[in-house]
Amino acid sequence: MVTSFFTCKKIISSLAIAAMLSSVAPSLAAAPADKKDPVAVEAIAEQTLSTVQVVATGYTAGYESTGKRPGHPQYGITYSGVKVRRGQVSTIAADTKLFPIGTLLYIPGYGYGVVADTGSAIKGRRLDLYFETIKDVYKQWGKRTVAVQVLRKGNGKLSQAWLNQINRAVEAGKPIPQTYLES
Amino acid sequence: MVTSFFTCKKIISSLAIAAMLSSVAPSLAAAPADKKDPVAVEAIAEQTLSTVQVVATGYTAGYESTGKRPGHPQYGITYSGVKVRRGQVSTIAADTKLFPIGTLLYIPGYGYGVVADTGSAIKGRRLDLYFETIKDVYKQWGKRTVAVQVLRKGNGKLSQAWLNQINRAVEAGKPIPQTYLES
Repeated sequence: MVTSFFTCKKIISSLAIAAMLSSVAPSLAAAPADKKDPVAVEAIAEQTLSTVQVVATGYTAGYESTGKRPGHPQYGITYSGVKVRRGQVSTIAADTKLFPIGTLLYIPGYGYGVVADTGSAIKGRRLDLYFETIKDVYKQWGKRTVAVQVLRKGNGKLSQAWLNQINRAVEAGKPIPQTYLES
Repeated sequence: MVTSFFTCKKIISSLAIAAMLSSVAPSLAAAPADKKDPVAVEAIAEQTLSTVQVVATGYTAGYESTGKRPGHPQYGITYSGVKVRRGQVSTIAADTKLFPIGTLLYIPGYGYGVVADTGSAIKGRRLDLYFETIKDVYKQWGKRTVAVQVLRKGNGKLSQAWLNQINRAVEAGKPIPQTYLES
C-alpha cells in the first residue's frame, strides 16, 4: 500500500510537471518556429533565479485601470517613467518591495515582463499585466475553462417578469427551487 | 503494476472530484451561512441535466463589449429583451444553438446564469458572463494564479532606452540574451 502510494505520488508529480510545461507552451506558441525546439523551454528554466507563485490580473493604460484618459499628461506613462508596452518584453506592475523596478519575469501565458509600474491594489504576491485594450484583457487573460452544469433547457424565450421572480426566489448559496427548473 | 495503476486512477479521480468541489465552493462562499451546509452543494449536483466544458469570458454592457454607450436605446438590453443583470441569477451570453434563450446554468466561480444574450464571438462551447463593470471582470474573472520565473532582480531603475533595446534583442519564443540578465 505504501509502495502504491509513492508510485501514485510520482505519477501525480509527472502530471503536475506536464501541466506546468503545457502552461509554458502557449506563450512560446506565438513563435511557430520554436514549437519544435525544446531548447527554448529549457533555456528559460536555466536562467531562473527563483519561481514565485502570484495572482495576476490584466490592466490597460485606460481610465478603468489608471483613472487617466488620453490627453492626460501622464497617460500611458508607468511609475518608472517608461511608456507602457506590450511586446517581447512587456511592462507590468508589481509590489516593488517584492520585485524592484527593472525586475525581469517570465509569466506563463503572457510572456516576458519587466516591472515598470505599481498599483494601489498590487501588494505582495500580486501582478498587473499590461494589455493594449480592455478586449485584450478579456480575451487573452480573462478566459477560463469551466465545467458548467445545465439545470434547465430554455425554450427560446425569457421574460423580464420571470427573471425578476427567479432572482427574488433564489437565496444566496441555495439551489434554485424546482418549479423554476421545469421548462 | 496494473493494480497500482488503477489505484492511482482512483486517487487521481478523487483529486479531480475534490478540485471540482473546491471550484464550486467559492461562489457558494458568497453566502456565509451556507458554507457550513454541504446540502446546498449536493442539491446543485442533483438538479444537473448535464455538465458541459466551456470557455468563459466576462463582458459588460459598455462600449468595449457591446459597441453601445449609455444613452443608446438598446444600452443594457440583451438579445432576449431583458435587462442585463448581475444577481442570484445573472444574464449570460451563449450560442443559442447549444443553449437556447432561457437555459439555466450553474457556472463555478460565477454562480447561476440564464442565457439571455448572444455575441458574435460566442459560438459553440463559449460563454460570455455579464459583470457590472470592467473592473469586476478584471478582478472577479480575469485573475490567474501563476508560477512566475524571476530572471533578473531589478535595481529600482528602468530607462526607456534599455526597454527599447531589450525588446529589439529578444526574438519571439527565444530566451533573453544573458547580457540583459545581469543586474
